[in-house]
Amino acid sequence: MKALLLVAHGSRRTESNEEIAALAARLAQRSQGRFDIVEYAFLELAAPSIPDGIEQCLQKGAQSVSVLPYFLARGTHVVEDIPEQVAIKQTEYPNMDIHITPYLGTVDELPDVLLKLAE
Amino acid sequence: MKALLLVAHGSRRTESNEEIAALAARLAQRSQGRFDIVEYAFLELAAPSIPDGIEQCLQKGAQSVSVLPYFLARGTHVVEDIPEQVAIKQTEYPNMDIHITPYLGTVDELPDVLLKLAE
Repeated sequence: MKALLLVAHGSRRTESNEEIAALAARLAQRSQGRFDIVEYAFLELAAPSIPDGIEQCLQKGAQSVSVLPYFLARGTHVVEDIPEQVAIKQTEYPNMDIHITPYLGTVDELPDVLLKLAE
Repeated sequence: MKALLLVAHGSRRTESNEEIAALAARLAQRSQGRFDIVEYAFLELAAPSIPDGIEQCLQKGAQSVSVLPYFLARGTHVVEDIPEQVAIKQTEYPNMDIHITPYLGTVDELPDVLLKLAE
């Protein structure tokens, strides 16, 4: 089974964290045939943490976990903080495929998405 | 003439701000027939500021400026800080059409974009 873990920054504002939960739910609806499990996690300020999110995926039977950074810029969070958190579980489960995908800001379609939004 | 002003948070990391400049350049390339002018600005930590970005658009001949928040969550920056900065220029130029578009996080296509990225 394949899992997708959406990782956002996390906020002190409950509403912001709920936006992520809602987005993960939409991802789950549309992921048929691509991911069997969709979960979300936060880097800081909110729960579940990244290691807890990965653990949830594994407990639900995932052999593969794709950790997707919901971040726009290649900052310290993307370059250092998320990999550090993911490494905790990679070390704990060396036989599982736990990997980080490119972050949202790298998406080729972003210009078209933005232009459509602006019109 | 219509202008699009991409507004990002701004970072102490030059590379992050350069990502925004590069994205604005890609937007300009693809905006033919939709926007005559594409500029970028930062809410904080980097230049140009939002009022300066709007001013650039107007100086280049824009009668309409669409301010696009390059933000994922409906946080204080989107709800209060960006409108405050935009209001400075709306007050200064009451006859110009200076308005804020929905923020990136509202885009309907995001789940599909994320699933494609994750695969």
